Amino acid sequence: MSGPAKRVTIRDVAKHAGVSVATVSRTLAGDYPVQPATRHKVLQAVGELDYVRNAHARALSVAAPGAVAIVINSVATAYYSYIAQGVEEQATAEGRLCLICTTGGDPQRELAVVQMMREQRAEAVILVGSVIQDDDYKRRMTRYAHSLADSGSCLALCGRPPLGDGVPAFTVGFDNTGGAHAITTHLLSAGHRRILYLGLRLGQSTSDSRVAGYRTALADFGAVYDPELEVGCGYDRSSGYAAMKHRLAAGAGDFTRDFTAVFAATDVIAAGAFQAIREHGLRIPDDISIVGYDDTPPAEDIGLTTVHLPHAELGRAAVRLALSGKNPLVEAPITLGTHIVVRNSVKRVGNVR
Amino acid sequence: MSGPAKRVTIRDVAKHAGVSVATVSRTLAGDYPVQPATRHKVLQAVGELDYVRNAHARALSVAAPGAVAIVINSVATAYYSYIAQGVEEQATAEGRLCLICTTGGDPQRELAVVQMMREQRAEAVILVGSVIQDDDYKRRMTRYAHSLADSGSCLALCGRPPLGDGVPAFTVGFDNTGGAHAITTHLLSAGHRRILYLGLRLGQSTSDSRVAGYRTALADFGAVYDPELEVGCGYDRSSGYAAMKHRLAAGAGDFTRDFTAVFAATDVIAAGAFQAIREHGLRIPDDISIVGYDDTPPAEDIGLTTVHLPHAELGRAAVRLALSGKNPLVEAPITLGTHIVVRNSVKRVGNVR
Repeated sequence: MSGPAKRVTIRDVAKHAGVSVATVSRTLAGDYPVQPATRHKVLQAVGELDYVRNAHARALSVAAPGAVAIVINSVATAYYSYIAQGVEEQATAEGRLCLICTTGGDPQRELAVVQMMREQRAEAVILVGSVIQDDDYKRRMTRYAHSLADSGSCLALCGRPPLGDGVPAFTVGFDNTGGAHAITTHLLSAGHRRILYLGLRLGQSTSDSRVAGYRTALADFGAVYDPELEVGCGYDRSSGYAAMKHRLAAGAGDFTRDFTAVFAATDVIAAGAFQAIREHGLRIPDDISIVGYDDTPPAEDIGLTTVHLPHAELGRAAVRLALSGKNPLVEAPITLGTHIVVRNSVKRVGNVR
Repeated sequence: MSGPAKRVTIRDVAKHAGVSVATVSRTLAGDYPVQPATRHKVLQAVGELDYVRNAHARALSVAAPGAVAIVINSVATAYYSYIAQGVEEQATAEGRLCLICTTGGDPQRELAVVQMMREQRAEAVILVGSVIQDDDYKRRMTRYAHSLADSGSCLALCGRPPLGDGVPAFTVGFDNTGGAHAITTHLLSAGHRRILYLGLRLGQSTSDSRVAGYRTALADFGAVYDPELEVGCGYDRSSGYAAMKHRLAAGAGDFTRDFTAVFAATDVIAAGAFQAIREHGLRIPDDISIVGYDDTPPAEDIGLTTVHLPHAELGRAAVRLALSGKNPLVEAPITLGTHIVVRNSVKRVGNVR
């Protein structure tokens, strides 16, 4: 950025940070565990003195700030990208860079990414998204948590269940059971009793908690639980479209459909279902009421009543916690509340059956 | 993953790769320039032998594959996240990890990210998105290109103008002028002559090329060019809403509006404009025709006629080129074509004026 200046040495950095040369060296090399507080002091000194580790790196003439990494399945899904945006905002506010790593849901890529972030000396690694909580998953996460802790970094889980005692990982999640209970109650209060749940994915942590809220709300209203009304469906628009199309076609011979409302497990599923319902010649909400979950595009544009998730706040909370210096072994999980956003996709009906 | 095994040493890696121990060391440390072909051999040997550089890293027991980094303003914008998804797909297909770095449009963060990716030994760094092509920008990019080339990596620009001769950078972009020309012609062919361009951002490379296509199409049809019809607007939904609202309110006293169609510079602007038009009591396309640009959500859900950009293909093309081993000093820029997707937002009208 500027002309030649006196070369800053590792000794200048050590003096400025008030630590030994060996500590600076270890912090920058990442070969040995360094306390987060010490690491911050060193990196701050590196930043303030514009110290660079070798002659080639001088070409770019800045010291790299610390980094926070967020690991997600895909960046083209609003749920993930909104959480990532929160991580990015908070990381930036705390003077860190933000790296977003994608895995496509592949555990091998996840492992490679976590290792890379460890070598990159990321201060925190945040893993996001629904999981199947089997033994393999728990073993893998426990290994990541210990490995990152050993290197002075830490693991934070977002939208995933806690790993349990003795595993050094922070947990931040949404109250999905509460959100699903509230939106199902919204439909029940409008007189709906036969509510199609579109998006069943057995064993997936996020799906399980939403279905649990749906079932509890039905029970609270004394509505009959009918497993026929819980339909499996991928979490994308075309799956929502296909599943709704199939369900509407199946009921074509009957004098009436066996549901008056749809609870789509995500807004994107709801958007696909909207199209199928329209193509079937039915009107929303006059003929069928529908609600979604997430409050991501296109909910606002199609007038979908849905559950708002504070995606960005989840990301921010994870970063705040991960950089807080608190002990992940004793911190309680954080659960963020949700709320319903009422738009134009639900109509009051007389009770059926 | 498995139990204890004989420790692989740096000498094993050097032998396996057919290079010297010093070369392996340099490749892994990233302190000296290494030829890409050599680097690949070393990293392949590292992978095949499951070599890890120090005892601590053994906790995770895999060798990190090479990485491709994509640098974008924000991950919560579909334009960027769709391109990032293409980068991710191609990087995975070529056995690389994908890192997504966000800058919020801040050159300081961009610089820090590029430096980090250089230290991380990313094989390619892909910078995406519209820019203001001033001298500072060109100097910065030239510096990145040389610095990355020195370290055996390379720079690729996506959706940005080429840097010119002598700068080692690949360029891949959309034909925005062609796309804007085609969609404007679509409106002109439907009889519209007074077309509001919503989203002017003078000096921004992407905006400039879209506006150029709009103006040329008007000229080709002999329509009068009226700078009053080019309206500045941020590239987000609420800006589109506010700008449209303001424009409709301004024309409230007139016996007629001074435009019959709107060309929104992005689909997201169009979505905001949709809402403003509806709130004004007007129908699309009966009262106003509107087209967008990008073909990202919510275009499909609101029935918006728009210009489809092959976002993912742009990302894939950038990765293919960056990992091709070709010489960025002599490779010609790649320009990807676009096409119109016709939905339900344009109505044929009698010519006005």
